[in-house]
Amino acid sequence: MAFNKRVKIKDLLSDDFLDKQVDIMGWVRTKRSNKNVSFIAMNDGSTIKNFQVVADPNQIEDETLRRATTGACLKISGKIVASQGAGQQAELLAEKIEVLGDADPEKYPLQPKKHSLEFLREIAHLRVRTNTFGAVFRVRHALAYAVHKYFNDKGFFYIHTPIITASDAEGAGETFKVTTLDLKNPPLDDQGNIDYKQDFFERETNLTVSGQLEGELAAMGLAEIYTFGPTFRAENSNTTRHLAEFWMIEPEMAFYDAEDNQDLAEDFLKYIISYALENCQDDLEFLDKRAQEEESNKKAEQRAEMGLLERLRFVVDNKFERLTYTEAIDVLKNSNPNKKKKFQYLIEEWGADLQSEHERYLVEKHFKKPVILTDYPKDIKAFYMRQNDDGKTVAAMDILFPGIGEIIGGSQREERLDKLTQRMEEMDIPQEEMWWYLDTRRFGSTPHAGFGLGFERMVLFVTGMGNIRDVIAFPRTPGNAEF
Amino acid sequence: MAFNKRVKIKDLLSDDFLDKQVDIMGWVRTKRSNKNVSFIAMNDGSTIKNFQVVADPNQIEDETLRRATTGACLKISGKIVASQGAGQQAELLAEKIEVLGDADPEKYPLQPKKHSLEFLREIAHLRVRTNTFGAVFRVRHALAYAVHKYFNDKGFFYIHTPIITASDAEGAGETFKVTTLDLKNPPLDDQGNIDYKQDFFERETNLTVSGQLEGELAAMGLAEIYTFGPTFRAENSNTTRHLAEFWMIEPEMAFYDAEDNQDLAEDFLKYIISYALENCQDDLEFLDKRAQEEESNKKAEQRAEMGLLERLRFVVDNKFERLTYTEAIDVLKNSNPNKKKKFQYLIEEWGADLQSEHERYLVEKHFKKPVILTDYPKDIKAFYMRQNDDGKTVAAMDILFPGIGEIIGGSQREERLDKLTQRMEEMDIPQEEMWWYLDTRRFGSTPHAGFGLGFERMVLFVTGMGNIRDVIAFPRTPGNAEF
Repeated sequence: MAFNKRVKIKDLLSDDFLDKQVDIMGWVRTKRSNKNVSFIAMNDGSTIKNFQVVADPNQIEDETLRRATTGACLKISGKIVASQGAGQQAELLAEKIEVLGDADPEKYPLQPKKHSLEFLREIAHLRVRTNTFGAVFRVRHALAYAVHKYFNDKGFFYIHTPIITASDAEGAGETFKVTTLDLKNPPLDDQGNIDYKQDFFERETNLTVSGQLEGELAAMGLAEIYTFGPTFRAENSNTTRHLAEFWMIEPEMAFYDAEDNQDLAEDFLKYIISYALENCQDDLEFLDKRAQEEESNKKAEQRAEMGLLERLRFVVDNKFERLTYTEAIDVLKNSNPNKKKKFQYLIEEWGADLQSEHERYLVEKHFKKPVILTDYPKDIKAFYMRQNDDGKTVAAMDILFPGIGEIIGGSQREERLDKLTQRMEEMDIPQEEMWWYLDTRRFGSTPHAGFGLGFERMVLFVTGMGNIRDVIAFPRTPGNAEF
Repeated sequence: MAFNKRVKIKDLLSDDFLDKQVDIMGWVRTKRSNKNVSFIAMNDGSTIKNFQVVADPNQIEDETLRRATTGACLKISGKIVASQGAGQQAELLAEKIEVLGDADPEKYPLQPKKHSLEFLREIAHLRVRTNTFGAVFRVRHALAYAVHKYFNDKGFFYIHTPIITASDAEGAGETFKVTTLDLKNPPLDDQGNIDYKQDFFERETNLTVSGQLEGELAAMGLAEIYTFGPTFRAENSNTTRHLAEFWMIEPEMAFYDAEDNQDLAEDFLKYIISYALENCQDDLEFLDKRAQEEESNKKAEQRAEMGLLERLRFVVDNKFERLTYTEAIDVLKNSNPNKKKKFQYLIEEWGADLQSEHERYLVEKHFKKPVILTDYPKDIKAFYMRQNDDGKTVAAMDILFPGIGEIIGGSQREERLDKLTQRMEEMDIPQEEMWWYLDTRRFGSTPHAGFGLGFERMVLFVTGMGNIRDVIAFPRTPGNAEF
């Protein structure tokens, strides 16, 4: 006997159900009662908007109304009628209320008052029931779907690259080890080192920091692919911008050069933001107001120049500014904060790595629009980036966003075997282990390019939240693997 | 200067480009030459179909034609004309050919001849360039997209549940440890045990075996959610059905009972298979022929009764047979293979766990359609499944498919706190560590249900491939983490 015969609250907000008999199910957000009537605000997660239920104590038993406290789960049957009160179009006249699950007001932690994000992080298993996190996760869903839709519509193929890997794409990041060895008594070899031959994969393995290299392999046969999977960094960074486990989107395209790559990245970012603007109107309006309130608590000089919705439309409507790293260094060197020594890291010469303060200056103060920086010094970029003819720079690109700084990093890849192996030698990257990567340059190589988008940074930007731990359901950070 | 001004071969197969000037880019599959003309079959991954290029040695330099060997990457400019030969509608008259990347015929491993799947697995970085694997990965993409589209269209929200976790959903599976400790000199506590307080997460962590429990948390606020992420088993199983790393889809729905769950699962499976049938016609026709050839090499009694496409349509067109475990045991006990002792595991009494041979008998011999088995003995199922009133069974469901056996496992979840904790006690599952899971039953609990689909099993079923290592780009199995 099927149970799920409800109408979603999202659908009730349209006119189609007026004067109709419906069942709704959801959780009580608030209840206001007087002798003559109870008003119950119900939410079922389908929308940020609550639906008002009007319960007549002559019709609904006292005991039931008493149990309909904040957080309780109810099934309510009744008729949808035009609303008497202000602020909503329709309401439900309850004929029958069934308590599916109580929420003891003495114990339920989510009473209707303002809770700090820090407190809500400690009850991440319940925070999805709040307005803010309901909105965040609905927007996150919409963005994820937009990613898949964008690439599918363009004929890209979704590739699941490995999570457990024996290679380390950047030769850099600190990685998590993956093992089935007995940590207390690990097997040792003749030299007294851990004998990984006895581990599950018969070699040392770790969690991936990027699917790019494997993505390139697939692109050299399917031409246009993307990945969307979890990646990991074992960095001991307790900041509002870092997670130990986060999701990355990494398209890789054969037959693309640096400019094609920039065009795709700009188009892609605009598409997924537009998708959210079109499909998450209610949630984004709520988050826009929320961000305004947050801003009003800041000192005037720290306030963002634009509101959330304004910022999103601004990204969609403006052509991104494209300039080279070399040009950017000139701008920064001659900038006021550099001359007045306001930057924490002063820009003194070509070759300096750009910090977040520099990126944000370029975007927020100088150009006042998203910026694509290209052609970075090869010494501050990865071995696989295509070497430019100047011998000094590579065909890298970083896309910089207001408030966030770098949101995308990418490059045309080095497709010339001799140039690639020469760079690997210079950077001490072992070629034997990467025979398969080099094979793609040995056999049917072609110009190709790609980029990576940290998905949580995107969700952070679109929701206007301040801490990356608040845009993923169950964040993983140093000392924290709860839930 | 943008490079990517090509027309995809998939698009060339339509009529729109007849008599037009185009650039194509892709890899040479084969070349046939005589004194007067060369025919080059080009593939760019967009479709299984190659596109024929006709090159006149008077127009194209000898050296270029010589280099256009199997596997080489070419850019070809010319005019699309109606084809003279049989088997294709149009062809490209080459005016200019540029070799983007050579493929030395002495060294390139993918020469145009039949390669064994075992050999291709060893060069997984190149196998995507073959007909079979191109088709498999395009179908895999379509299935993944169909999953997202199905749930998005129904108003479900995609939740990314954690990969690194301190809990183990089933209390069962063998897991991979995740650590940043120095394996050679791990820190020990007073008792001489590993001091996980000094590990990255300050506790023992492993790779997730399922996102279900966290999915349930999200469903208790957003109502209808799904996960689609990697899961892991550290089982030393070297079979054609097991991977150490595989992708799972796990929807969880508040307000669903067992029957709602069955309805959703059946509808979902039919949708994604239909989607592949509609969107991957060419690839599935190729895979259908391929499966036929494979079958013809088998002994008559081992051959599948249906061809691939026939099997897919059969699943889409038939209502799944639903029966209880208890009914299934009766069928099996009285079956010929049981009476004639042909089953490896004879069914003697109620309570026996069903093996693949039993599941396949029910689907392929007895009912001759997909089967949903329900209400299993509680002793062979997980603690979180809802207890039926008989005190012996739980509201579980397994969906069984021809050739594959179990493709989906799910259940209505136990929403009653007292019943759940009692079952956890019986099964020695620590309640303190799962305080957050129990909280959802303490506060606003509701009937809810969900299921899990192993994505690679689905791809195996839809592509008709025989080994699960051939439906994921870079498989992870005992002793194998290459690429």
